[in-house]
Amino acid sequence: MGIETGDNQKASPRGGLVGAVDCIDSHPFFVEPFHVDFTGRIFLGVLGNHMLNAAGNHSQRRGWGIGALNETRHTWVLSRLAIEMNEMPRQYEHCEVRTWVKSVMRYFTNRNFSIHRADGTPLGYARSVWAMIDLETRQPCNLLTLYDGDILNYIVEEDQSLPLGGAGKGAFCPIEGHTSFRFREPQLLRTIDTYYSDVDINGHINSIKYIEHILDLFPKERFEQQSIRRFEIAYKAESYLGDRLSFYEQVVDKNETDIEVRKVAIKRGQDEEGFSTAEREQARPEVKTDGTVVCQAKVCFK
Amino acid sequence: MGIETGDNQKASPRGGLVGAVDCIDSHPFFVEPFHVDFTGRIFLGVLGNHMLNAAGNHSQRRGWGIGALNETRHTWVLSRLAIEMNEMPRQYEHCEVRTWVKSVMRYFTNRNFSIHRADGTPLGYARSVWAMIDLETRQPCNLLTLYDGDILNYIVEEDQSLPLGGAGKGAFCPIEGHTSFRFREPQLLRTIDTYYSDVDINGHINSIKYIEHILDLFPKERFEQQSIRRFEIAYKAESYLGDRLSFYEQVVDKNETDIEVRKVAIKRGQDEEGFSTAEREQARPEVKTDGTVVCQAKVCFK
Repeated sequence: MGIETGDNQKASPRGGLVGAVDCIDSHPFFVEPFHVDFTGRIFLGVLGNHMLNAAGNHSQRRGWGIGALNETRHTWVLSRLAIEMNEMPRQYEHCEVRTWVKSVMRYFTNRNFSIHRADGTPLGYARSVWAMIDLETRQPCNLLTLYDGDILNYIVEEDQSLPLGGAGKGAFCPIEGHTSFRFREPQLLRTIDTYYSDVDINGHINSIKYIEHILDLFPKERFEQQSIRRFEIAYKAESYLGDRLSFYEQVVDKNETDIEVRKVAIKRGQDEEGFSTAEREQARPEVKTDGTVVCQAKVCFK
Repeated sequence: MGIETGDNQKASPRGGLVGAVDCIDSHPFFVEPFHVDFTGRIFLGVLGNHMLNAAGNHSQRRGWGIGALNETRHTWVLSRLAIEMNEMPRQYEHCEVRTWVKSVMRYFTNRNFSIHRADGTPLGYARSVWAMIDLETRQPCNLLTLYDGDILNYIVEEDQSLPLGGAGKGAFCPIEGHTSFRFREPQLLRTIDTYYSDVDINGHINSIKYIEHILDLFPKERFEQQSIRRFEIAYKAESYLGDRLSFYEQVVDKNETDIEVRKVAIKRGQDEEGFSTAEREQARPEVKTDGTVVCQAKVCFK
C-alpha cells in the first residue's frame, strides 16, 4: 500500500495528480426540495447518489473513470456501501461529499467518504468496496497490476489525529467496517415487481433503487420517531428489469433490522420455440424457485 | 397582463428585477449516470424535477419563493404540467432549463419552460399551471391582488419571431396547450401501495413520483422501440403516504395512452375508540370505494 505525500504537482501515468491533499476530492451538493423526506431531511438514496457521483468524478479525474476504463473493456462494480450519519442534511442546505481511496487490494479497493456542511461541519461518513471487472469475462481484475498499478498512486493515509468529527480538510472515516451478514430464518416481508424506473443504463436494477425499496419496507411511524444511524448494503448479484424481488426481514433488536433481497427465479418458457416474444411471455409458466440473493442490508435506527 | 421591457435594472416591490430579459432564468443541470434510463436518456421524472427546481428558484429570486410565501401563509400548488421533447438529454450532457411567467390570471399562473443543450440547442419545451393557495383555508388566492399584483411585473411576452427550435435567449414555447381529459371506460392496469420514498416534506405523494409510477406502467419494449414525444399531467387531489393508488388506462391510439390515477378509499375504523393506533390499523375494515381522482395523464410516444 503506497502512500504519496509531499509533491502535490506530480502527475501519475494516467494523468491524475498524486499526493495526499490532491487525492481527496470535494463534491458539493445542494439539498433540493424533492430530495427530502417528510421530516425535511435528505433521502438516504439521494445522499448515496451524491456519493456515487463523487466517486465517479474522483476516478474520472485520475484516468480511472468508466469512460476511460471502457476503452480496455473494464468497469467498476460497487460491492459494499456503509453509511453512518450523525445528522442528515436538511432541505436547502449546501453540503459536500469528500472522497478518497483508502486502500487497494488485489481484487478490491476501499473508497471512503465524509459528508460535511458547506462550513466543514462533519455530518457523517461512509465506506465502500469496489471491484474492477473485465466486461467480456465478467471476472474481477487484478488492481495491483492493471495500468501498471497506477491506482496505488492515489491512496490517501487517513489522519487519525483529527478530532472526532473534525472539520479539517484531511481524510478521516471513524466508522465501523462492513458486517458479515448471517441470515437464519428471515421472514418474507414483501415481493415487488421491477419496472422501467428501477433500472440504470445497463438494464440492471440500480444500486440506489435497492436502498429506496429497502427503506420503503419500514412504516411511516419509524421515520416519524427515529432516524437512520447506519445503513449498510452488500451487493451480491445483478437483477434486471422485470425481475421479481422478495424482501426478507430479520429483526436483530428494536433498532436494528437485517434485510435480504432475493430475486424470484421465473422459468421463462425457453423451450417454446416458434413463438413470438409476446406469445412466449404469455405462455411462460411462472415457476417460482428459491431466489438468488441479490443484496443484503442492515438498517440501524437511533 | 402587463409586459415590462426596456428598463432591466428596475426592481419590483418584492425585490425581483423586472424586464423581459431579466425575467427569464436559466437553470443549468448535468445528466448524472443514475438519472438516465436503460437507453441512456434522462428519466422524464428527473427532467421534471429540474423544471420544478428552476421554477422554485425563479420564484424565490423574485420574492415569491415558498419560504417567503410561508410568511403570509401562502404556497404554490402545481396544477398541470405538459412536456414535449424533440430529444431527451443523454448521460453526461450539460443542459439548461429556461423558465419564465407566461401569463397571470386571477387564480392561476402559466409558467413556461424550454430545455436546451449547453450550446443553446433546444431539446424541448414545457408548460405548467400553478395556483396559489392559502395554507389555512386551502382555498386559491387572487394572484392579481396578492402583494399588490407584484407578480404581473414578471410576465414575459414570448417571442414568436424566433425560428422554430431557435437557440436564442428569448422566451419561446411552441407546444400545444393542456388537454381536456375525457375518460370513458378506462381499464384498471395496476394498484400500488405508497411508501416512505413516495412522499415529500408535506407528506404528499410527490408530483415527480406520479410521473415515475405512470411510466412504470409501460413495458420495457415500449421504451426500447419508442421514445416519449409528449407527457402531460393534471394534478387533481392530494394523496398521502400509505394511500393505495389505482392506475386506469385508456388507449387513445397506438402511440397515445391516457392514464387516470385514483386513490382507493379505505375506511380507517374511525369509530373504534379506545384502541391504540396500531390496534386500529389492525382492526380497520378495508372497505374499498370508488376512488377520488388524484391525477390524469397523457403519454404520447413517437
